[in-house]
Amino acid sequence: MDRDEEDRNWMRLALDAAARGRGMVEPNPMVGAVVVRDGRLVATGHHAQFGGPHAEAAALEAAGEQARGATLYVTLEPCCHHGKTPPCAEAILRAGVSRVVAAHRDPFPKVDGGGLSRLLAAGLDVTVGPAADSAVALNAPYLKRVFTGRPYVIAKWAMTLDGKAAVGPGDSRWISSAASRALVHAVRGRMDAIVVGIGTAIADDPQLTARPPGPRTPRRVVLDSQALLPSTSSLVKSARETPTLVAVTDRAPVDRRRNLEERGCEVVVFEGASRVPIVPLLAELGRRGMTNLLVEGGGLVLGAFLDAGEVDEVDVFIAPLIEGGDHARTPARGQGRSLMSDAARLDHLVHTTIDGDLRIQGLVPQSWRARLDSLIRDRTGNAY
Amino acid sequence: MDRDEEDRNWMRLALDAAARGRGMVEPNPMVGAVVVRDGRLVATGHHAQFGGPHAEAAALEAAGEQARGATLYVTLEPCCHHGKTPPCAEAILRAGVSRVVAAHRDPFPKVDGGGLSRLLAAGLDVTVGPAADSAVALNAPYLKRVFTGRPYVIAKWAMTLDGKAAVGPGDSRWISSAASRALVHAVRGRMDAIVVGIGTAIADDPQLTARPPGPRTPRRVVLDSQALLPSTSSLVKSARETPTLVAVTDRAPVDRRRNLEERGCEVVVFEGASRVPIVPLLAELGRRGMTNLLVEGGGLVLGAFLDAGEVDEVDVFIAPLIEGGDHARTPARGQGRSLMSDAARLDHLVHTTIDGDLRIQGLVPQSWRARLDSLIRDRTGNAY
Repeated sequence: MDRDEEDRNWMRLALDAAARGRGMVEPNPMVGAVVVRDGRLVATGHHAQFGGPHAEAAALEAAGEQARGATLYVTLEPCCHHGKTPPCAEAILRAGVSRVVAAHRDPFPKVDGGGLSRLLAAGLDVTVGPAADSAVALNAPYLKRVFTGRPYVIAKWAMTLDGKAAVGPGDSRWISSAASRALVHAVRGRMDAIVVGIGTAIADDPQLTARPPGPRTPRRVVLDSQALLPSTSSLVKSARETPTLVAVTDRAPVDRRRNLEERGCEVVVFEGASRVPIVPLLAELGRRGMTNLLVEGGGLVLGAFLDAGEVDEVDVFIAPLIEGGDHARTPARGQGRSLMSDAARLDHLVHTTIDGDLRIQGLVPQSWRARLDSLIRDRTGNAY
Repeated sequence: MDRDEEDRNWMRLALDAAARGRGMVEPNPMVGAVVVRDGRLVATGHHAQFGGPHAEAAALEAAGEQARGATLYVTLEPCCHHGKTPPCAEAILRAGVSRVVAAHRDPFPKVDGGGLSRLLAAGLDVTVGPAADSAVALNAPYLKRVFTGRPYVIAKWAMTLDGKAAVGPGDSRWISSAASRALVHAVRGRMDAIVVGIGTAIADDPQLTARPPGPRTPRRVVLDSQALLPSTSSLVKSARETPTLVAVTDRAPVDRRRNLEERGCEVVVFEGASRVPIVPLLAELGRRGMTNLLVEGGGLVLGAFLDAGEVDEVDVFIAPLIEGGDHARTPARGQGRSLMSDAARLDHLVHTTIDGDLRIQGLVPQSWRARLDSLIRDRTGNAY
């Protein structure tokens, strides 16, 4: 085994540790660290909780005196600024580590190469890049928000084998199996927000909660340009227990907005458009620290996110059902592409079968992803 | 290993042999046979070609004197009538076989238990049933035709991950990958007919041939109530080389029908309906000895077959594309079901990934399938 392969293997172990923070650390990135001396594992650590110790600090603490002369593998560039915790670069130097291997540079403006520069300046052996693909995939939501200010958007839908999402209003439920729906609840439990349109909110009267609860309580976000969400809806009735944001336009009557607010909803008004504009909505949610968003439909909302180019990942459940008919609804509406050759082609596909259903997850090509390649280079574009 | 398990294992071997006749023996069933003596394989045989020797005859011929006192495993009840070949039941008796194991009774009216009765009457040890599920699955098209007089219908479509079959006329091609399309050509090459609607025939101007050719040359069947198929279409231009049947109604102008006939198409007229009726069309194709039909679309034709309850199997290719839009077409139109809970639920699902595409094959519940269970019993319903 050469050193590159060894580096990748230890980094994969650090990535496994990092993933344990999923749903707990956001809007921070998930980070894992591993201390290795003489080819043997000394300690691991991960960022376990927003505001808690960073992965490097946890791993070095666990390693104690054995960190001296060791190699530290860390899935993200160590920080160099005083945030909620002291800078990790300094802790690394104090611990006497002789080599640091980072998967990639952290583009967060207060770091952005500064941590690696500090280690290089102190004379440490620094390697950047092992398992970088897996590391950026793990933290794609964090990275998209750093690059664009907007949260990462997962679009979820269920449909029949002949492409039908629902037959008509109120009949969209139970396309997918109970096991598939349980998986959707698990996804919800690590989201910052779940988005639906007013059509779905009225037709299905959903609760949009994770059952059982996950590490996060997602905010329910309803795209409701006219503030039509009924006071009698499950969303409004539970708004004091589970945060509910209703996105309206300035054309929504003020009395209806006020009614929603009085019942515990937060109403956010977008000016100068007849429908809630997707990019400004995402920018607002990003400013609030939201990293992960699940769009659950219906077709008009999914179409609006697709038309805005703001779907980063899809999570599709296909049930082995044939519905037929012209009246049934397609899962994604909106403007769409005008030719099949213009369709977005997903990559990093993952196929799973669940109790007869098929789950297909994939990534939508996005311009911000092109910037991920730069993260194994310094800010001037040179390889570390 | 008990005798039941041993029987199933040898029957699976016979089924493997049977499947070698696929595309060559129809409208006959695929049949395989295995001769076993003292727990050892003596010979195998299969029905290789329509009009050629039956599987039992082939296996017994190969076994020669070793058939005496042996067990013959055969995937279908041996015949007892003089057809294109002499009755197999007599050949079995002559060969001195002491035990016959058949997967199931042959419901073909001239056999229908008669072959098994002959063997039982002659004092042979007869077992019916091992691997019957696999045997009826292999010959489902043959069995449907015997039960109903109509060919087995496979509906094939390709769609995007958001359920779109085509964006508009002329843009339906290339949804699926080259590798997926090659698989469709392999399916075509064992079909008796490929069915499309006039909309698809005009929009896509398809050739509907198997490229490279398979064991059969499928007839191209166009559902064209008004006889609108253009003389300049690929189908009409090649009608003298590749058989082409145009199904019209009596409302189609006589001059257009005659024009198609003069150019080498066969025109079949259905009376008293504004659209070509599906069940009478299938009955006509069944009378002509067709066993396997592939319906390739478009959405109206697929919808008409689904509405008629005449789709027996689906073969769906899902490309990792997102198209979006209200104007895009759904793969199956027609009347459809009015509630999602009424949708047809497929079983025997097979999932395959091909070059990024996902292929889902499954069986549609059909009333004729309920009769398959009776095939391991005699005509009076008693177990053999």
